[in-house]
Amino acid sequence: MKIITKEIRLSTQGNPDLINITGKISDILAASKLKQGNLLVFVVGSTAAITTFEYEPDMIRDMKDLYEKIVPSDKSYAHDETWGDANGFSHLRAALQGQSLTIPFEKGQLCLGTWQQVVLAEFDNRPRDRRIIVHMLGE
Amino acid sequence: MKIITKEIRLSTQGNPDLINITGKISDILAASKLKQGNLLVFVVGSTAAITTFEYEPDMIRDMKDLYEKIVPSDKSYAHDETWGDANGFSHLRAALQGQSLTIPFEKGQLCLGTWQQVVLAEFDNRPRDRRIIVHMLGE
Amino acid sequence: MKIITKEIRLSTQGNPDLINITGKISDILAASKLKQGNLLVFVVGSTAAITTFEYEPDMIRDMKDLYEKIVPSDKSYAHDETWGDANGFSHLRAALQGQSLTIPFEKGQLCLGTWQQVVLAEFDNRPRDRRIIVHMLGE
Repeated sequence: MKIITKEIRLSTQGNPDLINITGKISDILAASKLKQGNLLVFVVGSTAAITTFEYEPDMIRDMKDLYEKIVPSDKSYAHDETWGDANGFSHLRAALQGQSLTIPFEKGQLCLGTWQQVVLAEFDNRPRDRRIIVHMLGE
Repeated sequence: MKIITKEIRLSTQGNPDLINITGKISDILAASKLKQGNLLVFVVGSTAAITTFEYEPDMIRDMKDLYEKIVPSDKSYAHDETWGDANGFSHLRAALQGQSLTIPFEKGQLCLGTWQQVVLAEFDNRPRDRRIIVHMLGE
Repeated sequence: MKIITKEIRLSTQGNPDLINITGKISDILAASKLKQGNLLVFVVGSTAAITTFEYEPDMIRDMKDLYEKIVPSDKSYAHDETWGDANGFSHLRAALQGQSLTIPFEKGQLCLGTWQQVVLAEFDNRPRDRRIIVHMLGE
């Protein structure tokens, strides 16, 4: 069994920016030559998250509306008052959505549904350079 | 160390259908003969999720009420307008709840609490045939 | 490759109690001598959860406000009426937030951001003795 750790670096727009990273992850898995195992996707930082959904423009809009409904961006949070960086909502959304996702793979393919894409959710209120760890265990 | 990948197939009712899959998962773990490691539960698709809760009728009702409150099923979403399949709410609930759960096991037993069951949350608005991957790494 | 399973035991206050467990987890990883792999944090029970956020007093307050908004503690839930233990809200918050988190590590260090702490969220309405499994796979 092997452990392989790679990373994806990308620049995001903020508030929020929902980016399909399925292709990059699949390429990393293909390059690893691993056939069976699991792949962990983990975003470093406290204002971004990882999720999966059907990546199409209307669903992207619906997801943004949902995050806005649960944690409005125009409300003031205690974190903002103290730190003056106005991204309290970004932290809250990230904590709720979560930073890690583990996907099994078989025959060298991620076990994702046809309409199930892996999405980086950038919740920060400004562009960021993100580091996403792609960690595989398998053979 | 071994990697073992199995799957659970089951037919669900929709909107939502919360199904206790703890027994099936425990059976798969027992059959594997693995004693120490971790077990990944992953549901394929973008309108279902995996969670854990105390699986009893009142909690099931409370969970359904919670999902309905956070993402109402009688509201129209952008995804619905474009695709005409009226399951925008299903996608949103699934993306928020998440498709993967990893549970450690010791002495051949999942480290779950007595009142902690693994639940497949079918959020789609119609019956579905679901494929749940149960992926074990251990010895 | 090695599998190492340890646990953290701690006493919590309830409703809610958000506890930074990053230091304890890092100590367990350091003692394992593992350099590359992944670390699973799993809380046993159905009224607590694991998340990550920037652990500072204002964010703690914001997180508590968010949980209160999504699942109010002063509302009566079906679970409460039947069981009389009044912690229906605790179960619901835990199910939504999730009990497991997997973090990759490299060079013996968890791949966490500077402002990203691992937090045990005790949602129960009374003090509890908690068992958190820290399960490492690596070399």
